[in-house]
Amino acid sequence: MYGPGDVRVEERDEPKIVDSTDAIIRLSATCICGSDMWPYRGAEPLFVTPQPMGHEYVGVVEQVGADVHNVTVGDFVVGSFVASDNTCEICLAGYQSRCIHNVMMGAIGTQAERARIPLADGTLVATPGHPEPDLIPSLMAASDVLGTGWYGAVAAEAGPGKTIAIVGDGAVGLSAVLAAKHLGAERIIMFSRHPERQALARAFGATDIVEERGDEAAAKITQLTGGYGAHGTVEAVGTQESMWQAIKSTRPGGYVGYVGVSHGVELDGLDLFFTSVHLHGGPAPVRQYLPELIELIVSRTIDPGKVFDLTLPIEEAAEGYKAMDERRATKVLLTF
Amino acid sequence: MYGPGDVRVEERDEPKIVDSTDAIIRLSATCICGSDMWPYRGAEPLFVTPQPMGHEYVGVVEQVGADVHNVTVGDFVVGSFVASDNTCEICLAGYQSRCIHNVMMGAIGTQAERARIPLADGTLVATPGHPEPDLIPSLMAASDVLGTGWYGAVAAEAGPGKTIAIVGDGAVGLSAVLAAKHLGAERIIMFSRHPERQALARAFGATDIVEERGDEAAAKITQLTGGYGAHGTVEAVGTQESMWQAIKSTRPGGYVGYVGVSHGVELDGLDLFFTSVHLHGGPAPVRQYLPELIELIVSRTIDPGKVFDLTLPIEEAAEGYKAMDERRATKVLLTF
Repeated sequence: MYGPGDVRVEERDEPKIVDSTDAIIRLSATCICGSDMWPYRGAEPLFVTPQPMGHEYVGVVEQVGADVHNVTVGDFVVGSFVASDNTCEICLAGYQSRCIHNVMMGAIGTQAERARIPLADGTLVATPGHPEPDLIPSLMAASDVLGTGWYGAVAAEAGPGKTIAIVGDGAVGLSAVLAAKHLGAERIIMFSRHPERQALARAFGATDIVEERGDEAAAKITQLTGGYGAHGTVEAVGTQESMWQAIKSTRPGGYVGYVGVSHGVELDGLDLFFTSVHLHGGPAPVRQYLPELIELIVSRTIDPGKVFDLTLPIEEAAEGYKAMDERRATKVLLTF
Repeated sequence: MYGPGDVRVEERDEPKIVDSTDAIIRLSATCICGSDMWPYRGAEPLFVTPQPMGHEYVGVVEQVGADVHNVTVGDFVVGSFVASDNTCEICLAGYQSRCIHNVMMGAIGTQAERARIPLADGTLVATPGHPEPDLIPSLMAASDVLGTGWYGAVAAEAGPGKTIAIVGDGAVGLSAVLAAKHLGAERIIMFSRHPERQALARAFGATDIVEERGDEAAAKITQLTGGYGAHGTVEAVGTQESMWQAIKSTRPGGYVGYVGVSHGVELDGLDLFFTSVHLHGGPAPVRQYLPELIELIVSRTIDPGKVFDLTLPIEEAAEGYKAMDERRATKVLLTF
């Protein structure tokens, strides 16, 4: 990305092993994230110009450093958007995205044929054998959006008997529906105004669709839940309106799992105090969920790859960004 | 309270049963809360002028409405600073302070010889027989500060093997030390610069005292915990500095229990996002803990009444406010 709205596909140097804990993978596919839209729309600066883009990846290990032992050349692997050692206290507690040695993969860029993966032992999870090609989109989703939606649903304490509301009908919000359903939520309320996304939400397990926004949306949830509010709400957008919509949709003592990267959100302490909600979120520790998600995908129990509604060859990446920016696509898969 | 700094003791009308669910109690003692300092200092407006003050109470039931069945005339009772029905879904989930029918006792005023307690069946908990007089201060503490500190420690997930930090060395923070100790925390770090409060914190179970404030304080916690931060932190002040001190003292994935009533706190969404902490708090559901706290007090397992370091007859209430404002007293007990 050379700047807002300016994405180009070009030849770059081959990635090389830098540290002995690195691996090099050849990507089987890659994709564009909703969070890539922030710099694309000029709402977030680039770290460097031009900036290699992408932080989601699945592929085959081509090379490993001397200290890599958990994966070997030829393995098909999935990793998270944050590389982690998976051995520090933070990782062991399940917060690999905040590993004491974490490396944000967005700083490396995985919208590419090959990528260097730091801390390969802690970061990469091998699938059992090579997956059938039609599973690639779902494994791709596991690398970020599915794992992020999963974390949101876990943070919202989705479970049996629970009513869970979900703010944001993008790939993460839709994945959160799938997660809430899998975790046993009784009622799943999706906020959405897009017919196609509503349909996918229902296919993933949503029981109710609410088209209102902001305070009206929250009031609707209160009304739908006997005056109490949802037991838990997933916030998967990251704006002031969506954050408060999530908080106000939740009953006192309930749980808000916020996974939308905050842009301009300011929380008034006193307002928050009197909501009495649990607020938890941040960059999702996708690594924690990868073994389970891979198992659910290869056993064809879940089909999160449905969030991809546009597939383009990598050469047309710029058109993929444009389609997502214009909301013609929810999520774009890029193939080689 | 007639205005900031202006507290007077005067004759008022006797309270009467208004609703059939009310009880009238004769107070055995009453006290001044740290939160009473906000209007005293002009940091919060009065609701009415003059405003009856006080929301903490223990005493003997003198009269009950027709629909009160759980307590009877002559019972010695403890209640929370929020009256609650204890039957709605929010109460049943343990969030009685946000009961769908909640009544803030501060609007009634319990710094008085008698008080009307709404929703008496849900609100009041009778002690086994009448307590020995030396237990009155501890039971008084249970009405608010102990229950609030307890909630903070529970929200901070204090438990075996955990390192818990506590911001605020007032009665609530000190009570949180007692709670963290009772809940089994391995290491309890108190932020304090007052020798007397440090001593009481140690008596209650604090293992470490940190005198730094703000970012320096948080850095000290990181250093004391192998670079990770506390597993959980209780925030018992309510200012911007104290809130961020609590958040930054906590490791990613850790728990911040905030019980200081927020005054001017603004949380930047993106900063909060990358802390990855669990944030939970608000007005403490003291009612949830009362049966357990009463049992611990009457069995003399805990002695939270030690937070009272000044006892005055009610006629000298104005001096009590002054002593707390000037930090000559941590918490003031008022007797009749």
